[in-house]
Amino acid sequence: MGGDNAPAEIVKGCLQALKKEAEIQVLLVGKEELIRKELEKNSAQKDAGEDASYCGGRLKIVNATEVIETGDAPVASIRSKKDSSIVVGMKLVRNKEADAFVSAGSSGAILVGGQVIVGRIKGIERAPFAPILPTDNGGVTLLLDAGANVDARSSHLKQFAQMGAIYMEHALGIKNPKVAILNVGLEEEKGNALVKETYPLLKQMKEEKGMNFIGSIEAREVTHGYADVCVCEGFTGNMVLKMMEGTASSVLKLMKKAMVSNLRSKIGALLLKPALKTALADLDGSKFGGAPMLGLNGLVVKTHGNAKANEICNALMQCKTFHEEKINEFIAKETGVGA
Amino acid sequence: MGGDNAPAEIVKGCLQALKKEAEIQVLLVGKEELIRKELEKNSAQKDAGEDASYCGGRLKIVNATEVIETGDAPVASIRSKKDSSIVVGMKLVRNKEADAFVSAGSSGAILVGGQVIVGRIKGIERAPFAPILPTDNGGVTLLLDAGANVDARSSHLKQFAQMGAIYMEHALGIKNPKVAILNVGLEEEKGNALVKETYPLLKQMKEEKGMNFIGSIEAREVTHGYADVCVCEGFTGNMVLKMMEGTASSVLKLMKKAMVSNLRSKIGALLLKPALKTALADLDGSKFGGAPMLGLNGLVVKTHGNAKANEICNALMQCKTFHEEKINEFIAKETGVGA
Repeated sequence: MGGDNAPAEIVKGCLQALKKEAEIQVLLVGKEELIRKELEKNSAQKDAGEDASYCGGRLKIVNATEVIETGDAPVASIRSKKDSSIVVGMKLVRNKEADAFVSAGSSGAILVGGQVIVGRIKGIERAPFAPILPTDNGGVTLLLDAGANVDARSSHLKQFAQMGAIYMEHALGIKNPKVAILNVGLEEEKGNALVKETYPLLKQMKEEKGMNFIGSIEAREVTHGYADVCVCEGFTGNMVLKMMEGTASSVLKLMKKAMVSNLRSKIGALLLKPALKTALADLDGSKFGGAPMLGLNGLVVKTHGNAKANEICNALMQCKTFHEEKINEFIAKETGVGA
Repeated sequence: MGGDNAPAEIVKGCLQALKKEAEIQVLLVGKEELIRKELEKNSAQKDAGEDASYCGGRLKIVNATEVIETGDAPVASIRSKKDSSIVVGMKLVRNKEADAFVSAGSSGAILVGGQVIVGRIKGIERAPFAPILPTDNGGVTLLLDAGANVDARSSHLKQFAQMGAIYMEHALGIKNPKVAILNVGLEEEKGNALVKETYPLLKQMKEEKGMNFIGSIEAREVTHGYADVCVCEGFTGNMVLKMMEGTASSVLKLMKKAMVSNLRSKIGALLLKPALKTALADLDGSKFGGAPMLGLNGLVVKTHGNAKANEICNALMQCKTFHEEKINEFIAKETGVGA
């Protein structure tokens, strides 16, 4: 029920995913009547005799009567709106009735719900929000934590680094991913107290466990793809993520302004557009289907609020990979805390 | 002697400034022989009988035999290279032989030197680095601290807010500037420990001193110009500044790639270029002539490492305004610590 395009695009995305992958099953959590209407619009095949079951039992509606709105205070709404799609959906994961939960809804509520409803893997101290950022060389980099926890400690950042490396290696197939810590400079003595405390822990992980720790990375280099995993605490990560979004949107806004400023530029824009679209597609995060929260008993994926069917479908594909590649088992094993 | 284009562009910029403003005097600090050659190249008028004096006494060379390189460790180089242009120049400010110091050299050395050589105004706890960032509505916003201090406390951030407001009002003429604190969300309960501690101090400044504190700003909105002054501690500010630079350069890189990808896009680019240049000029920070460090006994301005003559000239204009508008007197008065 969350996001700008719910439930229409969510329903469409799920049907796409079911068609694409024979092995997944979808539980659609939300207002049953609305969801049913969307399924009918998309000619989804209703199962005989079963009201909330479609596609030969592969898609089921789980009714949830409340909706957490973007403006709702995260902690309060998770507590009070017990029958919201976010709370009901996350409980399905907690109770092992689902392996993963995908939502385009309130970021704050999803991050809070992930920690308090789904819960962390035993021994994991904090569950980071880990968006996959596009880089200008056609690659990606994982930023964590991008805002699930503020005021994190060095032991948390160490686990973020481990989980990030596991995710990039097993979910995205990047062998021996380069892990860096976000810092104000490259020299080892640079940094705030947290970074100075974390740096030796990551060096130790390199020496003892073979983590490919490459040292510090300045924010200037994040979009240039110098590292596969960028580690930081949540306040910093939120700044980095949102500064990237804001700056990109400002540059594009000025570019669009230029494109319609006179006849000459309009013609130029028309000729340039196809190539520009291809080039800027590299900056489009929707192909990854949203950002995972790592370290939870299950998987929680936050898609963009404006996600369309395609991004939702990709998010479900991400869940499938996460499950098949047994990423949580690796996390439990590598962080040495038992499954 | 610092930056990519020293001393040629520095010398040119100073001569431009001397021509533009009859009231300023310039002390050119660096290797005398090299500077003299550049002055000759630009046909600067040497004063009779005085070896290091030009332009009727308005430009003088102050010899400094050493250079702090970009790679040098900031603290160590400020200590050991006593005859570098940065150390010698800053001492001129400390000894009141100069009102301001401008450099395109090592950021680290300038930030350290500002604090330890020039020194802070009595009562000012930290001196922030305060770049003026362009916004996509043709305006600007002041970001402070952008990296002079990490691990700052709430009392420091309060002074950053005060100094930022004074600077924007008196140096840039923005009446009653909107001051915001960088945060992970807009609600008052959002934030890390530092922001939660600082927020009430800024609210108090609003109630008691009429500061135009507008609350929190998310990083996403910085380049959209929602605030005139964005307050944060130095680690965060460094991330914001460099993420802006990195993202903008990545988007432009992809755009350039698109422009040369085929004949059609090349023609389109040719037609679009003039309008694009005008539009993107809004993002060019050189017109402000670098970023000041605030709260020092004098003024220290850091220009871009790749600054050309024009930016150097603008930096000198900024120094003139800073001096004429008595900004340091306002800072001493408003922060209640005596001049």
